[in-house]
Amino acid sequence: MAEQIKLQIVQGRLPAGTQLPTVRELARTLGVTRVTVQMAYHELQNAGLVEATVGRGTFVSRHVEARPPAQSLGRQLTPDAVVNDILQLGQIAGLRSLADAAPDASLFPAQEFWQALDECRGEALEMVRYGASQGDPLLRVEVARLLQDRGMAVTPDEVLIVAGVTQGLALVAQALARPGEPVLVEQPTYLGFLHTLKAHGVQPLAVPLDEEGPIPEAVERLAIQQRPRFFYTVPTFQNPTGVCATPARRAQLLALAEQYGFLLVEDDLYARLSYEGPPPPAVKSLDRSESVIHVGGFSKLLMPGLRLGYVVAPPPIHERLLSLRRAMDLCSPPLLQRALARFLHEDGLKRHLRRVLPLYRQRRDALLAALRHHMPPAVQWTRPQGGFCVWLTLPRRSTLADLQQAALQQGWAFAPGEVFLTRPSPDYHLRLCFGAQPPEWIAQGVEVLANLIRERLDRQESVIEPPSDWLPLV
Amino acid sequence: MAEQIKLQIVQGRLPAGTQLPTVRELARTLGVTRVTVQMAYHELQNAGLVEATVGRGTFVSRHVEARPPAQSLGRQLTPDAVVNDILQLGQIAGLRSLADAAPDASLFPAQEFWQALDECRGEALEMVRYGASQGDPLLRVEVARLLQDRGMAVTPDEVLIVAGVTQGLALVAQALARPGEPVLVEQPTYLGFLHTLKAHGVQPLAVPLDEEGPIPEAVERLAIQQRPRFFYTVPTFQNPTGVCATPARRAQLLALAEQYGFLLVEDDLYARLSYEGPPPPAVKSLDRSESVIHVGGFSKLLMPGLRLGYVVAPPPIHERLLSLRRAMDLCSPPLLQRALARFLHEDGLKRHLRRVLPLYRQRRDALLAALRHHMPPAVQWTRPQGGFCVWLTLPRRSTLADLQQAALQQGWAFAPGEVFLTRPSPDYHLRLCFGAQPPEWIAQGVEVLANLIRERLDRQESVIEPPSDWLPLV
Repeated sequence: MAEQIKLQIVQGRLPAGTQLPTVRELARTLGVTRVTVQMAYHELQNAGLVEATVGRGTFVSRHVEARPPAQSLGRQLTPDAVVNDILQLGQIAGLRSLADAAPDASLFPAQEFWQALDECRGEALEMVRYGASQGDPLLRVEVARLLQDRGMAVTPDEVLIVAGVTQGLALVAQALARPGEPVLVEQPTYLGFLHTLKAHGVQPLAVPLDEEGPIPEAVERLAIQQRPRFFYTVPTFQNPTGVCATPARRAQLLALAEQYGFLLVEDDLYARLSYEGPPPPAVKSLDRSESVIHVGGFSKLLMPGLRLGYVVAPPPIHERLLSLRRAMDLCSPPLLQRALARFLHEDGLKRHLRRVLPLYRQRRDALLAALRHHMPPAVQWTRPQGGFCVWLTLPRRSTLADLQQAALQQGWAFAPGEVFLTRPSPDYHLRLCFGAQPPEWIAQGVEVLANLIRERLDRQESVIEPPSDWLPLV
Repeated sequence: MAEQIKLQIVQGRLPAGTQLPTVRELARTLGVTRVTVQMAYHELQNAGLVEATVGRGTFVSRHVEARPPAQSLGRQLTPDAVVNDILQLGQIAGLRSLADAAPDASLFPAQEFWQALDECRGEALEMVRYGASQGDPLLRVEVARLLQDRGMAVTPDEVLIVAGVTQGLALVAQALARPGEPVLVEQPTYLGFLHTLKAHGVQPLAVPLDEEGPIPEAVERLAIQQRPRFFYTVPTFQNPTGVCATPARRAQLLALAEQYGFLLVEDDLYARLSYEGPPPPAVKSLDRSESVIHVGGFSKLLMPGLRLGYVVAPPPIHERLLSLRRAMDLCSPPLLQRALARFLHEDGLKRHLRRVLPLYRQRRDALLAALRHHMPPAVQWTRPQGGFCVWLTLPRRSTLADLQQAALQQGWAFAPGEVFLTRPSPDYHLRLCFGAQPPEWIAQGVEVLANLIRERLDRQESVIEPPSDWLPLV
C-alpha cells in the first residue's frame, strides 16, 4: 500500500499538501486493518513523503513539491548536491541505483547486531551517559585487534573513534589545513571529501591516478610547487575507480611524504572488501616516521547507520583531533560503540564478510561481464579487485550531456564522473557501483545504459575516437 | 572489586604498565568466580584504567601515567581542558563532582528508553542504513510537537536533527562566522561553545549579564562597534549562572537583532528544567523577522549518551547547516533517533520530567540553603529558578589560587569560573552544579568548600570587601 501511495506522490498524482484520508477511513475503504494503514503511513513518513501534523492529519509533504526527487536529481553537479542525491535515491520508488558505493542493505547483519545490543542491556544506564571523546575503550581494543590484519601494530590508546570516515576526514581537514591552504587529492577522488574540503575552504589539487595508483612524479611536482599540508589517498580499492595502489607505489608515496614533509591521509574504508585474496597491507603499516594518518570505518563493511569509524594518527595530531572532536559533538553514542565492540569481539565481522564477499565478487563479475557484452568499443573501464566501484571513461560528446537524465527516466541511477574531479577531464566519466544490486539487475542496468550511450555516441559523430587520455585514468 | 583496583591505580599503588593477574589467577586468589573478575576488569577497561592487549594480558593503562586524573585536573584553564576534565570526573574513584551541569545519571530513564529501542526491532534493517541528514522524520514530528510548549509553531520540515547541542552550535558557528570574525557571547557563557569558537578561530566578545539577562545597552554598543555575525545567548536558566532573561529583555534583544542585522542564536537546552512554574516562551516564539536560530537537545532532559538535539533556523540558514552536516558526519544514527521518537511519542519525556523535576528542585534548594548556612559574608551567588547551575562571586585574592586543587584533595570538584569568561573579571568566580548529587552530599560539599574559602579569605586580609562588581554579575 505504501508503495502505491508513494508512486502516486512521485508521479504527481497526489500533489504536495494533499490531505490523506485518516487511518480509520482508509482502513474501511480498502477493507484492511488499521495497523496495516498505520504501517504504510509510517513508512511514507519515514521516506519523507508525507507529514503528520498533530491534530490536523496526514499530508503529502511540501518537501516533495519543493524538490520532486526524480526531477531535481542530477540537476546540480556539485559534490554536495550529488551526496544529497545519492542519500535520497533509496527513497524513490521504481528507481534502481548503481550510483552508491555502498553495500546491499538487505545483507546487513542487523539481527546479529541486535543480539550484541541486547547484551548491553545490563549496562543500560552506563550506555546513555556521555562517553569518552576518544571512544569506548572496549571498541578501541577491538579496532586495535582488527588493525593487525592490516599489518598495523597499534594499542587501544592510539585509536580514536569517530562518527564514520566522513567525520574522521572532516576532523583531519580542519586540524591540518587552514582555509585557502592547498592539499592533494587523487583525480578522481571520493566526492564526500571534496564537499568537506569545500566546506572548510581548503583548496584540493589533483594528483592523477593510473592503474598502479597515484602517480609519484605528479605528487613530487605538486609537493615542490605547492607545499601541501597532506595528501588524501584511498590506496586500496579506491573510490571511485577501484584502483589498488601497488606495494611499490605505496613505498614511493611514503618516501615522498617523508622527503617533502607532508602527511599521507590514508582512507582504508574499502580494504577488506577484497575479492582476489588478501589486500596489500595499509600504508600506515610501513610508517616509521609518523607521516601517515590512517582512517577506516564500518559503513561499507557492516552497516552505515552505526556511524562509527576510527582514526590512528601520530600522537600530536591525535591530541588535536581529540580536542576538535570535543568542539564538534563531544563523543559518539556509547551504546552503539559498545554493541559494535561486542559484535566484533564475537567475530561478527569475519563471519559477515565470509558470507557477503562471495556475493559482492559475483556482482563485480556480473558488472564487468555486462560491460564487455553491451558497451560500445569507445567505452573503457577499470577492473577492480575489491571495493564497490567501476570507473568508466568515454569520449566527451555534447550528445552525452543528457545521459544521466535519460537513465533516470528509464529508472536507473549512476554517479556522473565530473563531481569526483578537481580539474576538468577531456573525457566523459561515470561511476558504476555493483554492491547494492543483484547480478540480474546489474546486467539489465548496464544494458539500458549501454543503449543510451551507443545512441548518443552514434548521433553526431561518424568516427568514434577512443578516449583521449586513458592513462592516467582521467 | 573494580573499585578496589581503581583506588590502587588512582593512588599510584599500581603504576602504569603493571600487568594485572589473569582472570583465572585472581579468581582463585580471592575465592570468587571468574565471571566476577571478568566483570571487574571489564569495568576498569571501560573506565580507561586498564588495557587488554590480545595475547599479552591486562595492563594498567599508560594513559593513567600520562595524565593521572586527580593531578592533571584543573591544571590547565582553557575551555577545552576543562571540558575534558569534566568528562573525566565521573571516572575518578572517591571524587564527588559539583562541576558538571548535567543530570543525575542514576535517574536516567534507561529502561523505558530500552523498551522504545525494542519496539524498533521490527525495523532493524531500516535502522542501520544511512539516514536522512535532516534527521528521522518521526523524530522531527515529535520535536515539532514538543516545541509547541515553547511557544513555537514549526512543522517537522523546519526541524534539523543534530548530534546534540554541541554539534548544533558547531554547525552554526561554522556556517555563520569566518575565522577572525566577531560574535557576541554572554559573560560568563557555556565553556563548550567557547572551545568550539576557538576551534573555528572565531572571536567571542563579552556581553555582560545582570539578573534580568544580557544587558541591552552593551549589546547595542558592540553591535554598532563590531558588527557581529550573531549573539549566542542562553536566555532560559543560563549556564553557568542560572539567570533567566525577563520577557522585556527578550523583546529588547530581538529588536536589537532586527535593527542591527545580527542573528540571535538561542540555546534552549535547560528551559524545561523549570522549578517555579512554566518557563518563559522561547525567544524564537517572538521571531517575525527570521532573526533567531533556536537550538535545543535531550542531554540535560533525558540522556546525554543519545547525542541528539535539534536546530530550527530560518530557511536559507537551515539549508547551509544541512549542507555542513553532510560535510561533517552525514547523519545521526537512525536507530537512536527512531527509539527517541517512540519514547517521546509515548510521552516518555513528560513522565520523566514529572518524576525528576521535584528532585532537582530539592537539590537546588539544598544548595542554596547550604550556601546561606556555610558561606562567609563576602561570597555572593545567583538564585536560579531552573537549570543546574549556581554562579558564585568572591572578592579576588591571591590566596584563592589553589582553591580548586585544595577542593580536589578533599574529594570535591567544582568548575572554576575563569573558563566561562571571555574577558577578565575583577572578581573570583566558580560554578556549582546541583543536578548530579543528592541533597546530603550537596550540603557536605558546600561545607567543605566554604571552609576552604573562609580559610583563604581570612589568611591575608583583615577587612573583607564585598565583590567589586556584583551587578552585572561578572
